[in-house]
Amino acid sequence: MIYFNCDYLEGAHPAIMKKLMETNLEQTIGYSADPYCAAAREKIKAACQAPDADVHFLVGGTQTNTTVIASILRPYQGVLAAASGHINVHETGAIESTGHKVLTIPTTDGKITAQQIDENCYALAHDDNYEHIVQPGMVYLSHPTEYGTLYTKDELTAISEVCRKWQIPLFLDGARLGYGLMSDVSDLTLPELAHLCDVFYIGGTKVGALFGEAVVIMNDALKRDFRNMMKRHGGMLAKGRLLGIQFETLFTDDLYFTISRHAIDMAMQIRDIFVSAGYPLLFDSPTNQQYPILPDEDFAALRKDFGFEFWERVDETHSGTRFCASWATTQENVDALRQAVQALKK
Amino acid sequence: MIYFNCDYLEGAHPAIMKKLMETNLEQTIGYSADPYCAAAREKIKAACQAPDADVHFLVGGTQTNTTVIASILRPYQGVLAAASGHINVHETGAIESTGHKVLTIPTTDGKITAQQIDENCYALAHDDNYEHIVQPGMVYLSHPTEYGTLYTKDELTAISEVCRKWQIPLFLDGARLGYGLMSDVSDLTLPELAHLCDVFYIGGTKVGALFGEAVVIMNDALKRDFRNMMKRHGGMLAKGRLLGIQFETLFTDDLYFTISRHAIDMAMQIRDIFVSAGYPLLFDSPTNQQYPILPDEDFAALRKDFGFEFWERVDETHSGTRFCASWATTQENVDALRQAVQALKK
Amino acid sequence: MIYFNCDYLEGAHPAIMKKLMETNLEQTIGYSADPYCAAAREKIKAACQAPDADVHFLVGGTQTNTTVIASILRPYQGVLAAASGHINVHETGAIESTGHKVLTIPTTDGKITAQQIDENCYALAHDDNYEHIVQPGMVYLSHPTEYGTLYTKDELTAISEVCRKWQIPLFLDGARLGYGLMSDVSDLTLPELAHLCDVFYIGGTKVGALFGEAVVIMNDALKRDFRNMMKRHGGMLAKGRLLGIQFETLFTDDLYFTISRHAIDMAMQIRDIFVSAGYPLLFDSPTNQQYPILPDEDFAALRKDFGFEFWERVDETHSGTRFCASWATTQENVDALRQAVQALKK
Amino acid sequence: MIYFNCDYLEGAHPAIMKKLMETNLEQTIGYSADPYCAAAREKIKAACQAPDADVHFLVGGTQTNTTVIASILRPYQGVLAAASGHINVHETGAIESTGHKVLTIPTTDGKITAQQIDENCYALAHDDNYEHIVQPGMVYLSHPTEYGTLYTKDELTAISEVCRKWQIPLFLDGARLGYGLMSDVSDLTLPELAHLCDVFYIGGTKVGALFGEAVVIMNDALKRDFRNMMKRHGGMLAKGRLLGIQFETLFTDDLYFTISRHAIDMAMQIRDIFVSAGYPLLFDSPTNQQYPILPDEDFAALRKDFGFEFWERVDETHSGTRFCASWATTQENVDALRQAVQALKK
Repeated sequence: MIYFNCDYLEGAHPAIMKKLMETNLEQTIGYSADPYCAAAREKIKAACQAPDADVHFLVGGTQTNTTVIASILRPYQGVLAAASGHINVHETGAIESTGHKVLTIPTTDGKITAQQIDENCYALAHDDNYEHIVQPGMVYLSHPTEYGTLYTKDELTAISEVCRKWQIPLFLDGARLGYGLMSDVSDLTLPELAHLCDVFYIGGTKVGALFGEAVVIMNDALKRDFRNMMKRHGGMLAKGRLLGIQFETLFTDDLYFTISRHAIDMAMQIRDIFVSAGYPLLFDSPTNQQYPILPDEDFAALRKDFGFEFWERVDETHSGTRFCASWATTQENVDALRQAVQALKK
Repeated sequence: MIYFNCDYLEGAHPAIMKKLMETNLEQTIGYSADPYCAAAREKIKAACQAPDADVHFLVGGTQTNTTVIASILRPYQGVLAAASGHINVHETGAIESTGHKVLTIPTTDGKITAQQIDENCYALAHDDNYEHIVQPGMVYLSHPTEYGTLYTKDELTAISEVCRKWQIPLFLDGARLGYGLMSDVSDLTLPELAHLCDVFYIGGTKVGALFGEAVVIMNDALKRDFRNMMKRHGGMLAKGRLLGIQFETLFTDDLYFTISRHAIDMAMQIRDIFVSAGYPLLFDSPTNQQYPILPDEDFAALRKDFGFEFWERVDETHSGTRFCASWATTQENVDALRQAVQALKK
Repeated sequence: MIYFNCDYLEGAHPAIMKKLMETNLEQTIGYSADPYCAAAREKIKAACQAPDADVHFLVGGTQTNTTVIASILRPYQGVLAAASGHINVHETGAIESTGHKVLTIPTTDGKITAQQIDENCYALAHDDNYEHIVQPGMVYLSHPTEYGTLYTKDELTAISEVCRKWQIPLFLDGARLGYGLMSDVSDLTLPELAHLCDVFYIGGTKVGALFGEAVVIMNDALKRDFRNMMKRHGGMLAKGRLLGIQFETLFTDDLYFTISRHAIDMAMQIRDIFVSAGYPLLFDSPTNQQYPILPDEDFAALRKDFGFEFWERVDETHSGTRFCASWATTQENVDALRQAVQALKK
Repeated sequence: MIYFNCDYLEGAHPAIMKKLMETNLEQTIGYSADPYCAAAREKIKAACQAPDADVHFLVGGTQTNTTVIASILRPYQGVLAAASGHINVHETGAIESTGHKVLTIPTTDGKITAQQIDENCYALAHDDNYEHIVQPGMVYLSHPTEYGTLYTKDELTAISEVCRKWQIPLFLDGARLGYGLMSDVSDLTLPELAHLCDVFYIGGTKVGALFGEAVVIMNDALKRDFRNMMKRHGGMLAKGRLLGIQFETLFTDDLYFTISRHAIDMAMQIRDIFVSAGYPLLFDSPTNQQYPILPDEDFAALRKDFGFEFWERVDETHSGTRFCASWATTQENVDALRQAVQALKK
């Protein structure tokens, strides 16, 4: 069985495992106050060209989204997000657990626009029922989105400007950030992206680490006591150095970018496998997630040897699916998939 | 200025004020443990033909919705409701403040259907991401709805059955219940409605009282420690007898129903005023709220002498509006409105 | 049966009832945007010599405490309060329902000191585990306290200064404020008290109103969107004018102070009844609550004709009790109590 | 510098690291639905002699405490715990973040008694203010406690019985469980302990793992949808197999117990170092944490070469401290400490 279900099927990049082994019996103090975390912070700030940023390390995405959002909003405020956003659909109400509503914006491609944000803020500001309505207190984006799509530099700039106009922070969920930055179509660099956001995170779990997300707080007003929020939400890892070691390794010699680029190469091959075999795509994703639409018989046939995700029913005989590549995807596995898909067409 | 903005413009029915005056200097113990509350509970249970129900008195609607919903749901569950539902749009995130998501169902007339509820429950039960998704833990309806519409006996029965099938409680917000029950088109009696619900409330604030909502808990499983929940949510009135006196008065000699019927009579006149003058209606409401669509110049002209609510923009030159009748609406004021509308058409 | 159990046994002062009757069928818009609330706000600001204060009206004490505290604290902060404080012991976890810990300070007389507050703040600021500990984010006092005791001007000034030193707001719960201000031993005026606090409230429920608490926000930084918080916590009364009418009446011709003084007079008689009969007092209260310690046989004998509260067991044969006077306590009832107590001693 | 500050200074036991390396590039599905987690569950159930238990893996202690407690309590309930309990003092209000009060019980040795629990439950059940008070909904213990102390079999049995009498679940925090079970004075086996609890966890972070806590749910009533709660609280690790691999290794060939015993051996040497040098102990701990009281000059001298924790000020010239041993503590480091302490006495 070969799995393309998601981008967290394997452990960590061997360079990380090697470093974890080498340092295993060293003694360091806890809670990310160790030298490895310090070094990782410096490398990430350098990569972002953001010397004044605060960098924090958490274990997973839901925890990170919850902690960041709860640290920003006033109680009666909510977070604007695409209706398809991870925080709205796949976190079992983690945002609501902190008292906040996810204010959803309709989307077809997983992205939201500056105009939609502006309209929402304008509508509330001019509503007679202002005091009875949840106030947009921040914006949540993911890049890439749940559908694998990307914001352009112009789009993200426009969103950033509208957020500053309404004085609401912009938070970018970068669980798959490497796969966005290294996409062929990306016109955004990491420093550019960083400076357009108030806070964002660089995903490790899906990009080479055993686990870990690096939160980068750009806006000074959001920095105060963030570690207290982390502890409160169970996001302060005792052996914090595990996160430091991983991120230091990822941000040494551009490893994060190199392995992300590998995933894009594999994903583009997967895309080509299906497109050249005549299968349509549910979303036009330039990143590591690919969404071919399969007829039921091909779906069933492929499932015998390959793991992939059912995404949604398209019509009575077809389903949208998701195949993910990652830093760990092998050419051998992609070749096996190509053969299997080509065999379907014979 | 004559106001039709809402159904809480005046104080209370004179019979209530008289009783409050008569009892003013009596001493009673607090927190609704007094004889007036006891008597009111008995009269409400008799009116509902529900001798085993628990009846509790709270001050207002948002407080009541929050307390009931938070008392029912497990932490990771949400409440299914129409997207237009009061809890979703006009309570400043009160439900979310208790950690719960409002799971919205699209609607055009303010109502949701048994089939929509069934589909939502079915979809989750069969989703591979079951553990990552907020679980529907109950259903919230309002009757009348935010758009003045009503559930038929068949519709409410079907909803009740689907709730029991999925073992999720059905909660009916009756902030305007009298105006629903006394509508010409209603085919539901109070006892029928009571026995289809697990919990519901009988609105006093909008139907003759200074304030107050009477929660009726039909389902034994929902009764435990509800008063603790009330206290926790600031819903335990110190001088609870004020609520008892009001509801006892409303449920003596059918006052609640008589004054509700008066509001319907007034509302039907308001409806006729606009319809016979050729104005279309935004919603087809058989209850105390009426929603004529006015061209901008008529809107402006009427606003000089009459208070009413802007509801939503319909097109570039028209707005939907809301005119409410209530127990307190006078024939004189309705006549004045008729004259003014007719004058517009000359 | 004559009740001294609490200070919310009767309805409202007759002047309030009269005004409610007179205005009953007037039409006003909802949610305290009416002229009565406007007038009440002006009178309260004048009484406080605080022209820039914001004044809001809520229905009850638990709701008010919760709304104020939740509007001030950051998520990881708690509220410093006496261990005996109402928010810590008698609100069914309402503060915790908003995510905040009550950080308790030991007390024997219901009061806390500036030094205790200072020590708590200092200890945290110097603790290696700073990020793991709930941070004191504000101070909660009640005046009078749960034990009927009062802060002196010097004590409250010292507390105010230490709060400003640590930059944490001072919130004073004035559910019984009138009974504190009119006590013989009080050396604080309302304007003095107001200017020492960041936010406080003037209790109506226990001092002449049917219900209602007037929150006065002195500190500009705490004013933003307080009404949104009120709505979220179910504290926005639909017929807000009921609160405005009551507080306008209470703050006309010094009614609030006159009726509070009456309660003190009655309470001092009650105190004298017990003290002169040789009963010790559990707390030395100069306000409307009195706490005689009764032997079991006297407790039982008095309970036949009088309602009063068991407070706590003192030893094997004695209990501390609470007798409350209020604006509504009659000389006749106090005289009956005197006779009964004196009869016990014969 | 040699550190004895805590029991999470190093990485993981080499057997765990070896297994993580060997399996690193295997593909497994996420969220602990993999074969390693399945195997670990079976081994833990066998070790507990609890074939019907549910076993779940989370990353850290605060997250685990929060998730378990929030999954059990009704909104208006709190958790009874020692005032010194970790959830009360060192989790930045994580329990309160879920709406629940920590109901503290005074303690001098970190333990609470069956009688204290019984008194708390009895007092509430008989309080006139029942509805105004946070209800004890469960009991939280840690074993070993924060002070390194242990419950005897008799003590834990009595606590278990009183919990069952009042129908409130018993939750045992076993962050250092191995160090408790392997203490010389322990008269409790793991299966005995398991069957006295409704839910408990076996700590990995402090006992040989990189991270991880294994929750064992014994009581069927607490099993429902626990994974939904985990996800909601950010406690569902994407690469769940990392937890499975670690716990499977720890529960193979008694590794968990063997390495725990090593820590006890080292701790008893540390204890002897101080006791035989004449230093008193702050707490009489038979487990891996030792609490010598040091005069200021010795404190300062030892701090030059050794890391250890300041615990609390004892008098003007002495401080209580904490020295921890763990699975990773070396004889060499303990010997160095002995030499240093003996040198102080010369």
